[in-house]
Amino acid sequence: MMLKTHQCGTLTKANVGETVVLNGWVQRRRDLGGVLFIDLRDRSGIMQIVFNPDFSGEALQTGDKARNEFVLAVKGKVVERDEETLNPNLPTGEIEVQVSEIEILNEAKNPPFFIEDGIDVDEAIRLKYRYLDLRRPEMQQTLKLRSKAAKIFRDYLDENDFLEIETPILTKSTPEGARDYLVPSRVQEGKFFALPQSPQLFKQMLMVGGMERYYQIARCFRDEDLRADRQPEFTQVDIETSFLSEEQLQEMMEELMVRLFKELKGVDIPRPFQRLTYAEAMDKYGSDKPDLRFGLELVDLSDVVANSGVKVFASVVAKGGQVKALNAKGCGTWSRKEIDDLGPYAARYGAKGLAWIQVKNGELKGPIVKFFNEEELAAIKEKLQAEDGDLLLFSADTKKVVADVLGNLRLKIGKDLGLIDESEYKFAWVVDFPLVEYVEEEKRHVALHHPFTRPKEEDLHLFDTEPTEIRAQAYDLVLNGYEVGGGSMRIYQKDIQEKMFSALGFSQEEAYEQFGFLLDAFEYGTPPHGGIAFGFDRLVMLLAGSTNLRETIAFPKTASSADLLSDAPSGVGEHQLDDLSIRLAIKQEASK
Amino acid sequence: MMLKTHQCGTLTKANVGETVVLNGWVQRRRDLGGVLFIDLRDRSGIMQIVFNPDFSGEALQTGDKARNEFVLAVKGKVVERDEETLNPNLPTGEIEVQVSEIEILNEAKNPPFFIEDGIDVDEAIRLKYRYLDLRRPEMQQTLKLRSKAAKIFRDYLDENDFLEIETPILTKSTPEGARDYLVPSRVQEGKFFALPQSPQLFKQMLMVGGMERYYQIARCFRDEDLRADRQPEFTQVDIETSFLSEEQLQEMMEELMVRLFKELKGVDIPRPFQRLTYAEAMDKYGSDKPDLRFGLELVDLSDVVANSGVKVFASVVAKGGQVKALNAKGCGTWSRKEIDDLGPYAARYGAKGLAWIQVKNGELKGPIVKFFNEEELAAIKEKLQAEDGDLLLFSADTKKVVADVLGNLRLKIGKDLGLIDESEYKFAWVVDFPLVEYVEEEKRHVALHHPFTRPKEEDLHLFDTEPTEIRAQAYDLVLNGYEVGGGSMRIYQKDIQEKMFSALGFSQEEAYEQFGFLLDAFEYGTPPHGGIAFGFDRLVMLLAGSTNLRETIAFPKTASSADLLSDAPSGVGEHQLDDLSIRLAIKQEASK
Repeated sequence: MMLKTHQCGTLTKANVGETVVLNGWVQRRRDLGGVLFIDLRDRSGIMQIVFNPDFSGEALQTGDKARNEFVLAVKGKVVERDEETLNPNLPTGEIEVQVSEIEILNEAKNPPFFIEDGIDVDEAIRLKYRYLDLRRPEMQQTLKLRSKAAKIFRDYLDENDFLEIETPILTKSTPEGARDYLVPSRVQEGKFFALPQSPQLFKQMLMVGGMERYYQIARCFRDEDLRADRQPEFTQVDIETSFLSEEQLQEMMEELMVRLFKELKGVDIPRPFQRLTYAEAMDKYGSDKPDLRFGLELVDLSDVVANSGVKVFASVVAKGGQVKALNAKGCGTWSRKEIDDLGPYAARYGAKGLAWIQVKNGELKGPIVKFFNEEELAAIKEKLQAEDGDLLLFSADTKKVVADVLGNLRLKIGKDLGLIDESEYKFAWVVDFPLVEYVEEEKRHVALHHPFTRPKEEDLHLFDTEPTEIRAQAYDLVLNGYEVGGGSMRIYQKDIQEKMFSALGFSQEEAYEQFGFLLDAFEYGTPPHGGIAFGFDRLVMLLAGSTNLRETIAFPKTASSADLLSDAPSGVGEHQLDDLSIRLAIKQEASK
Repeated sequence: MMLKTHQCGTLTKANVGETVVLNGWVQRRRDLGGVLFIDLRDRSGIMQIVFNPDFSGEALQTGDKARNEFVLAVKGKVVERDEETLNPNLPTGEIEVQVSEIEILNEAKNPPFFIEDGIDVDEAIRLKYRYLDLRRPEMQQTLKLRSKAAKIFRDYLDENDFLEIETPILTKSTPEGARDYLVPSRVQEGKFFALPQSPQLFKQMLMVGGMERYYQIARCFRDEDLRADRQPEFTQVDIETSFLSEEQLQEMMEELMVRLFKELKGVDIPRPFQRLTYAEAMDKYGSDKPDLRFGLELVDLSDVVANSGVKVFASVVAKGGQVKALNAKGCGTWSRKEIDDLGPYAARYGAKGLAWIQVKNGELKGPIVKFFNEEELAAIKEKLQAEDGDLLLFSADTKKVVADVLGNLRLKIGKDLGLIDESEYKFAWVVDFPLVEYVEEEKRHVALHHPFTRPKEEDLHLFDTEPTEIRAQAYDLVLNGYEVGGGSMRIYQKDIQEKMFSALGFSQEEAYEQFGFLLDAFEYGTPPHGGIAFGFDRLVMLLAGSTNLRETIAFPKTASSADLLSDAPSGVGEHQLDDLSIRLAIKQEASK
C-alpha cells in the first residue's frame, strides 16, 4: 500500500506543488460530470481530492467506485483551488490534491448514521456502532481532549515529585462493600476478589510506606443501579501526600486546575479559589456543590416568621425546622399558572407546598401575605431585598428538605432566567464538612466521608458531647455546580482513630475486621497524610462542554450497566462456572 | 505540626547556616553519652540530626524517646560536621542538623525487619508488611524507576501523536476465554463480565474508529496457576496504529527503547536493532527470545550424521528429526561427573540423553566417537570449529525438543562460563513468526498469536497447501533473553480473514460467535493497522536489574494468586453471593 506522507488536515498552501500520499476515509463524493471530488478524512481533518481525466488516468475509474467510508490511499499533487471552489469553512479549503494514483484499501457498507457532528441518532445506536460514532469529529475532539487532560495532570504531578504508582484491581472484599464487584478466584476455590471502589486503603498504605507523594489515574468500580452521571467503571485522578497541610495540598491542586483550564480552554482562572465552609454553602445555596456563577442566594427567615400567623411556618420553626426563601428577581410578573408549575418541581425534592409572594407597586401580594403583620412583611422585604417585579419563594421544612427544595429551585430559576454565563468557570473549595452524620434508620453515626477522615483539632472535644458538630478536615472542589474533586486529611494518631471508631459505634473487633491491615500498618510509624481524588470523567465532561458523561468515554456502559457494542455482560457456559466452583441461583420470582 | 521546608536527602553544604524543618522516620539512633544522633530518613535520603544540651534544650529529652521508625518533625540549623564525623558513604555526610525543636508526630512498634537494603527476610513476611518493605531504599528506587519509565513511554508516544485512550475493564467473556476472570453483574442477574486478558479487541475497534494512534498503560488479567514471572494482574503498554508499515512501527519503537534506556540507565543502544527471523532464532539459539549477549550458537549436524554409525542419530534424522550440537568452548577439561551433571538439566527440557565429545590434543574423544568415520568426524570438527579444550554437546530429537534442550543448555553454559556481560543490553526483533501451528491434541491449526494476525503477502498462496509454512507479520522485541514486547500487523481484508478462519477450522458462525462485534466493525471501512504491547512489569524488572517481577510492583500477588497484605482473595458473606444470584459449588473431593 502507499504509505501516507501527510495528514489530511495539516496540509496548507505552503505545500502547494508537493506530491503527497494521503490515507483516509471517504467523507463524501461528488461527481460533477466526469470530474470526481472526494472529501478524504483522517484524524486531523479533511482534504478535498480531485479526479480528472486530465491528470488522474486510470485512478478516476478506481476512484469512481469509492463510496462513503471506503478507505483510500491516494497520491497526488497539492494545488490551489479555483477561486469559485474555495471553501472558507474548511481549514484546508484553499487547496486540493489532484490524484494521480489511488488504492482502495478497504470497502465499507453504508453506515447506519452519518459520520458528522450534531447527528440526531438514538444513543443506543451510536453505542452499538461505537467504532463509527468515534469517527465523528466531535468524538475525536473529546478523546483528544481527554488524552491531553491526562497529560497535563501527569506532567504537573511529575514536576511536583509525585510518583505514579499502580495499586491492585484485584483487591479484598469488605463486609461493608455492598456495591463491590466480586471476582471468584479459580486458583483459590470458594474465595473472591473485589474490584476497588477507590484505591483509598492502598494509597494510605503507600503513605505508611514512605512514598510521600503518590498519584494514579485509577479505574474504580461500583456495582449499582446507575444514575445518568454514573458509570459502573469510572476513572479518578487519585492523589495522596504526606507531611502537607490541608492548605498546601489545596494550593497545589489549584495550580493544577489553573494550568488544566489554561491549556485546554485558554481561560485564566483567578487564584486563590473561593473558600466556603460546608455550613455556608448549605446556608446560602442549599447545596454542598453550589453553582457560583450566579447569586440568587437563600435567605433564612426562621426568626422573622417564627411567631407569624402562617401556622405552617411557625410550627416548622417550633419543631426545629427552617423557613427560608429566595428572591426570583423579575419573576413577579409570572402568571399564577407559571408559579404553580414550580410546585411539582419543588415536590420532587420533598416540598409539601411552595408558598410565594409577588412584589407589585411596592406591595407584597399573594395568599400568605395577609397572615403576616407589618413588621414581619417589612423584615421579609428587607432581608430578601425585595423590589417591584420580584417573586419570593418560601420553603418550610427540615433543614435538609429546605436546602434540597430551594437549592434546586435556585438552579432551575438561575437557568430559566439566563443568569448563568456558560463560558465561565467558577471553582470553589467547600471545606469543613461534618465528620459524621446521624442516620435515623441505623440508629447510629456514620462517617460522611470515611472513617479515616481527620477531625479538626479544635473540635476534638465534641466527640464526647455532640459528634455531629465535629467538623472534618475534609474538602470538595466544586466547579459550576459539580463536585469535581474531594478529599481529606486522614487520621494518623491512634487515640483519635479509636475515638472515631467509638463514635461510629464500632468495637475494636469490628473495626479490625473491616480495616485490619490498615490498622496494623498504622502501628508502625504513620506520617500525617491526606489527599484528594478528582472525578476524571466529569472533569473532561466539563472541559468538553458536554452534559453527558458517556460522551467522554471511548466505550461507556448504558444506564443498565450494559456495553451495547460487545454485548456485555453476557451469559457464560456451565463449564466456566464449574471451573470457578460457583453456580447460578437466579431468584425466579423476583426477576419475573 | 512543623511543616517541612526541605527534604532530608537534598540538603548540601550550600545550606549551612540555614534553619530548616525536616519530617521523616528514625532510621537509627545513637546516644553518645548525652549527645544524641539520629539518622532521619525521608523519600529523598538520610540526614543526621543532633541533639545536644547546648543547643537542643528540652528537645533532647523528647528526642531521647524516639525509637526506630518513629515519625519526627525537627527544626534546626544546618552545620558542617566535625572532621572526625564526616561520612563519605552518605550524600549528606558532610553536614548535620542541630535540633532546636522537635515534635514526635507518631510512634512505631519495633518493625519485623530492618528498613534497609539487602535484607535476608522471607518474601512472605515482606509482602505481609509491604508498607514497611516499601520504605526500604531499594523498593523506593524501583518504584521511582517505574514511575519514570511510564513517563518516558507517555512523553514519547504523546510527542508522536498517540492518544491515550482507556478501554473497559468490565468486558465480555468469550467461550475461548478459559483464563478469564469472570465478574457477576448485580444489576443484570445471571450475567457476567470478564476482565480483559488484553485490550486487543478494543484497540482494534479504536483503529476502525479512526483514532489512528492509540496507547494505554493497561492493566490486564489472567486467572491461572502462576509461574515465577507471572502475575494475575499485570501491566502492558498497549499500542496500536493505522496506516503504518511493520518497519515504520518498529523504527518508532526502537527510538522509544533507546530513549528509555538512555534516560534511565545512561546507556546508548545502537540502532537499528538486530533483526532475526523466527526460523533463524530457533536454528541458531533454540529460542524465539534469544539472549544475544553471547555466541555459543547451535549447529545443525543432521546431514553430517544422517548415515553415521550412531544409530540414534541416524534414526532421528530418518524420522524427520534433527541432530544439533553446540561447542562449549574450554569445557573439554570437565570431568566425567561434571559432564554427567548436565544430563538431568537437559532432561528437564525433554532430552532422552546427552551425547558429548571432548577435544583433546587435536583428537575427538568420547563414547560415541568410535561410531563415526573419519569424514564425519572431520565435518563435525569443522562445522563446530572445535579446538583443543572444547566440549561438544549433542541433541537428537524432534526439532522442538532439540531447540528446547540445546537452547537451555546454551543459556546455562553461557552463564556458567561467565560469557554474559551483565551491563549490556542486547535488543533484537524476532520477525516472521509462523502464522499458525498444528496442535496434535486438538487435531487442528491454531493461531500462534491471534486470529487477526496478518500473514505475509507472499505466503498467502500457502493457505491451501501448507498453512504452517505461512509466515505472519508478527514480531517480538527481545532483550537479553526476555520477550519484552510483541505485536503484529492485523488482517483488515475480509477475504484474508475468511481464509484465516477456515485455516483454523472455524465456521463463519463459530467465528462470529467469538468475535462478532469486531467482525461487524470490519465491514465498515477498516484501515490497515497493527500494533505492539510491551510487558511493562518485565521491562521495569530488567531496568532495575532484578530477576523478580514482584519487586517491580507495589502490591504484588504471590505465586498462589494471594495478596498477603490484605488477605485477598477471601471468603464472602452469603448475602453478598445472594445479591449476585450465585452460590458456591465447592468440589469437595478435588479440593481435599
